[in-house]
Amino acid sequence: MITRDDIEEAAARLAGRVRHTPVLHLAPGELSPELGPACPVVLKLELVQHTGSFKPRGAFNRMLSAALPTAGVIAASGGNHGAAVAYAARALGVTAEIFVPAPTPPTKVARIASYGARVVQGGADYAEAQAACRARQAETGALEVHAYDHDAVLAGQGTVGREFAADAPGLTHLLVACGGGGLIGGIAAWYAGRVAVIGVEPEGCPGLHNALAAGQPVTSPVGGLAADSLGARQVGGRMFEIARRHVAGAVLVCDDDIRAAQRVLWERLRLIAEPGGATALAALLSGAFVPPPGAVVGVLVCGANTDPGKVV
Amino acid sequence: MITRDDIEEAAARLAGRVRHTPVLHLAPGELSPELGPACPVVLKLELVQHTGSFKPRGAFNRMLSAALPTAGVIAASGGNHGAAVAYAARALGVTAEIFVPAPTPPTKVARIASYGARVVQGGADYAEAQAACRARQAETGALEVHAYDHDAVLAGQGTVGREFAADAPGLTHLLVACGGGGLIGGIAAWYAGRVAVIGVEPEGCPGLHNALAAGQPVTSPVGGLAADSLGARQVGGRMFEIARRHVAGAVLVCDDDIRAAQRVLWERLRLIAEPGGATALAALLSGAFVPPPGAVVGVLVCGANTDPGKVV
Repeated sequence: MITRDDIEEAAARLAGRVRHTPVLHLAPGELSPELGPACPVVLKLELVQHTGSFKPRGAFNRMLSAALPTAGVIAASGGNHGAAVAYAARALGVTAEIFVPAPTPPTKVARIASYGARVVQGGADYAEAQAACRARQAETGALEVHAYDHDAVLAGQGTVGREFAADAPGLTHLLVACGGGGLIGGIAAWYAGRVAVIGVEPEGCPGLHNALAAGQPVTSPVGGLAADSLGARQVGGRMFEIARRHVAGAVLVCDDDIRAAQRVLWERLRLIAEPGGATALAALLSGAFVPPPGAVVGVLVCGANTDPGKVV
Repeated sequence: MITRDDIEEAAARLAGRVRHTPVLHLAPGELSPELGPACPVVLKLELVQHTGSFKPRGAFNRMLSAALPTAGVIAASGGNHGAAVAYAARALGVTAEIFVPAPTPPTKVARIASYGARVVQGGADYAEAQAACRARQAETGALEVHAYDHDAVLAGQGTVGREFAADAPGLTHLLVACGGGGLIGGIAAWYAGRVAVIGVEPEGCPGLHNALAAGQPVTSPVGGLAADSLGARQVGGRMFEIARRHVAGAVLVCDDDIRAAQRVLWERLRLIAEPGGATALAALLSGAFVPPPGAVVGVLVCGANTDPGKVV
């Protein structure tokens, strides 16, 4: 299981490669006086990260921790991880091959290609793209950069938690969207119980919720509005070992809650988030997560790779 | 002429009323490797301010510095100031009447109305709306909240400079968009020559540029992409007294430069800015302002009240 030291080392490796993203402190009720919450909220605006999501943290840390073969790197992704691997590969001067499933939106495919990667689109979901990626990796010998189930990826994503803790030391709770679980796994490893880290998932992608209920990662459905960023069939084994100790719970939100959170981010803050990027906030605004008295709630806004015209 | 003390007092008045907006530090070339700039850049994300622009700072400071009559407040505006006055009036429990010219976009009119203000739309530009506002004020006795040419408004906008200086102490230059000049006037009064504050205007609204050339505020044309937020026919007399001492210069950008800056903000940072909000950055990206060696350039992104679908 990764440690705080691993995350500190990752932060040193990532210096100058990723942006230290800003936080925004909001007074009680400021986001939505009608719906609550009656507690201070701190948003971390990870959407201004390179490539429009947190993913370059894990991608860079994985690639900077390994010997890079002449065959370059290879990855499967719903889109955001692929963009990050392509971006990091260009920065480090190696080639990248990215496998995305059929539902990945054209804007994400175009963005991956814009960083110079070869994109292969096919398969019904992330798991099928991952199978194709594995087969190709066996042929080429490229370094696989897994989207979540690798210690270096988890440690890289954990740097989000390290920055959040430094910039908002008073949090009692932290809401984080969960797909395969690399982000929340890394963050929970950083906090290690000091803050109640809570996973938020769409009802259509309940991987962590089901895993915590079953006591182990289990195969779950994948669907709905945020499937292109949170649509892993099951959470990673490595994240689950962290989650069973250091994740305080998992809550589910429906697609309408996610859409409403996207609209609130625009109406109140003029920020555009993709569905997966607004999922954590949706838990607070919808009442799926109700903060206890005295809570100070951190919310990670983790991605913005969508068509802005779809949000407003 | 307003002083730093006036701005300190404004900051105390505004505490809890406006957001301390975040800054984002960017490495050399990060925004646009092709076009330059080869210097560190610090963006202040004032677009996440209440109502989507910096304007609540001046509006609140004006209203909190005066006795509020039972007739409430009245203002003329291209849109952003009107939204801020309406927002502040609702927060302070008084009525607001806002005069906007015909070209003010429907999204801005709707936003002003959403805060409960009465909106009167008419006149070819801000100056004509201002004349109608004055006539109405003489009838009602409401408190006029001028969009820029009032010391309390200048001091309120000056709190942007105070925050920027605290969060990015190493700036050598600061680019600020200019319409009537309340924002740059307040900011220049804060810095008082410690940083080279440079006004940026669209070629279609060259009020500060022409005033500095003439040695006094002069009537200038109003037109182009950003006219709804920067379209004052001439800069305020109060700001000009500050500008002649503490503004280092004024540069002009064309509408295509503004559009390009809007696109860069989305492509590189997933931020949506309105044309006036991207105007300061346009000076840097277009080369209208070329930073000298060793410069650390601050750029204020001051508003986002546009249709996001128009930007991308």
